[in-house]
Amino acid sequence: MSRFFNDKLSKLDAYTPGEQPRDMQYIKLNTNESPYPPSPTVSEAVAVQADILQLYSDPECKELREKLAKLHNVSIDNILVSNGSDDILNFAFAAFSGTGKTAIFPDITYGFYPVFANLNQTKFRTVALNDDFTITPSDYYNAPGPVFIANPNAPTGIALTLDEIENIVTNNPDNVVVIDEAYVDFGAESCYPLTSKYDNLLVVQTFSKSRSLAGGRLGFAIGSKELIADLTTIKFSTNPYSVNRMTMAAGIAAVEDNDYYMDNCKKVAQTRELTVAELEKIGFAVVPSSANFVFAKHPDYEGEYIYTELKKRGVLVRHFSNPKICDYNRITIGSPEQMTKFIEIIKQVVSE
Amino acid sequence: MSRFFNDKLSKLDAYTPGEQPRDMQYIKLNTNESPYPPSPTVSEAVAVQADILQLYSDPECKELREKLAKLHNVSIDNILVSNGSDDILNFAFAAFSGTGKTAIFPDITYGFYPVFANLNQTKFRTVALNDDFTITPSDYYNAPGPVFIANPNAPTGIALTLDEIENIVTNNPDNVVVIDEAYVDFGAESCYPLTSKYDNLLVVQTFSKSRSLAGGRLGFAIGSKELIADLTTIKFSTNPYSVNRMTMAAGIAAVEDNDYYMDNCKKVAQTRELTVAELEKIGFAVVPSSANFVFAKHPDYEGEYIYTELKKRGVLVRHFSNPKICDYNRITIGSPEQMTKFIEIIKQVVSE
Repeated sequence: MSRFFNDKLSKLDAYTPGEQPRDMQYIKLNTNESPYPPSPTVSEAVAVQADILQLYSDPECKELREKLAKLHNVSIDNILVSNGSDDILNFAFAAFSGTGKTAIFPDITYGFYPVFANLNQTKFRTVALNDDFTITPSDYYNAPGPVFIANPNAPTGIALTLDEIENIVTNNPDNVVVIDEAYVDFGAESCYPLTSKYDNLLVVQTFSKSRSLAGGRLGFAIGSKELIADLTTIKFSTNPYSVNRMTMAAGIAAVEDNDYYMDNCKKVAQTRELTVAELEKIGFAVVPSSANFVFAKHPDYEGEYIYTELKKRGVLVRHFSNPKICDYNRITIGSPEQMTKFIEIIKQVVSE
Repeated sequence: MSRFFNDKLSKLDAYTPGEQPRDMQYIKLNTNESPYPPSPTVSEAVAVQADILQLYSDPECKELREKLAKLHNVSIDNILVSNGSDDILNFAFAAFSGTGKTAIFPDITYGFYPVFANLNQTKFRTVALNDDFTITPSDYYNAPGPVFIANPNAPTGIALTLDEIENIVTNNPDNVVVIDEAYVDFGAESCYPLTSKYDNLLVVQTFSKSRSLAGGRLGFAIGSKELIADLTTIKFSTNPYSVNRMTMAAGIAAVEDNDYYMDNCKKVAQTRELTVAELEKIGFAVVPSSANFVFAKHPDYEGEYIYTELKKRGVLVRHFSNPKICDYNRITIGSPEQMTKFIEIIKQVVSE
């Protein structure tokens, strides 16, 4: 930190992305990427844009928002797109905080929420998950400020039902409830249809996981016209052109090719079930997952040991040092071939 | 604005990008884009990435930072890259503000500075330009907080000399001085060599103008290791992967092809001089420009009239309603063909 750094942000502890080591070719099961590439229409759409990059992209992202609006049966005014869902979650912390408000979210969830809260100088309080990592919806009723819930939650993979979400929304008439659906396409139910009923519900999704565009950076939000206008004000106060031409084109192509991506999600869910069965056979306890990852621990081996031994053998998974979850590892579901190899290798680790 | 919007940001007035109308094919001289496309190596580099977008980009942007460090003869720790220079300027407002500090910048400059200040809940004060739109460097000595100066300034195009910048830096030992060099390659001198001497100087550049990547979104900063670390903390607290794979590859290719882009800048400067001569012939007063635009007024016609009449005839320029500059229009320098056509059309406007 330099001597010039903002004293109000001095406690800021930046988010740590999953490691990207370059020393060997790993089976990378640590950042929840899709094992499937984008469809060929994406490359074609990108190529057209690559030749005209001297021109700004459309800051209103009109065509992409129109496509997303049509897919979700809402109006274009109900859609915001930006440079990844992280961008939008950060905007939501900025837009829906304020004097006397305290944001709330689970103690075990996406590690970026407390970072966004600190960056935006917003008070926050965390709510402990139950011992089985489930969320009790009523813990979030009548919250002291905006509510942030990842559904399915990360890194646990556990999903709330639509009714549970609706109860949180109706019991927070004066707060925005942000549902972060980064992983929803792998087995949970999206609550976006509720946005037409409730002006305090914001649904955030990403193209990174289910739409194979992690390296393209594209996220979107669905909500009432007013919430979307608020977030648009923040977007146009930071980086109006944040979605570049190539990503915009990739996003449009991906929405047009929706079936391809939804089929991939089904494949990932099938691979997940096979992986869970294999992990359970060798003694792992696996948290029931609706996401493209599983959260698993072994009764005889520490989480960090498993992480380290896997890494030595060329497999990267994600381990968190937080004592509440340090027994576990988060394992991204890769291709069937990757998971067969992974099971082979983890069998070695727990048989030593 | 929704009833949930942050009361601390209620006065936020988002930046208005240059218009992007779709109703007809305009000669677009309103957003300072390059008239030259990126070099063919950019398309090739992008195509490789478009097929592997399911994988995250490198959040450390190592290869691109290495290339930029080499080009500028600094270390990789002196370089930050992010999703456009707007992103970096916003980070700088966040990082270098703080209790008791008041940011300062000219009253006529890039319209985003007050927006960033408001978004970051930072006090700011503007310093009036001289009547001829020049900056008096001593006005910025011993500032009450971080100093933001666009050099060349926008929308005037006037540049400070390296000595003048150095004097501002040495007379602000306890403040960060941010020099926004978005337009520097078109005729001013970059002050980045001074960053090795002064730990309070941050230089921000963009690939949007001189490197034909406006639609790719890529900006970078050069500064002391400590300043870059501060900005990196902010970046990793908002959107660590903000530079997508395709833009990263485009940026690397553009740095490798530096001569192509610097030749284009020379061409733009030549076209600018021809354009200025033609404008002066028909009575315009043109502010001396070191940028890829000129700022011009006519003694007999209001700025808004000229803007409107040009638009009717298929030419877009940028007009600002601020009373201090409303007599002027900012005219981007396009290709020689575009500018010949532009001169033809503006001659019609001022001969009526």
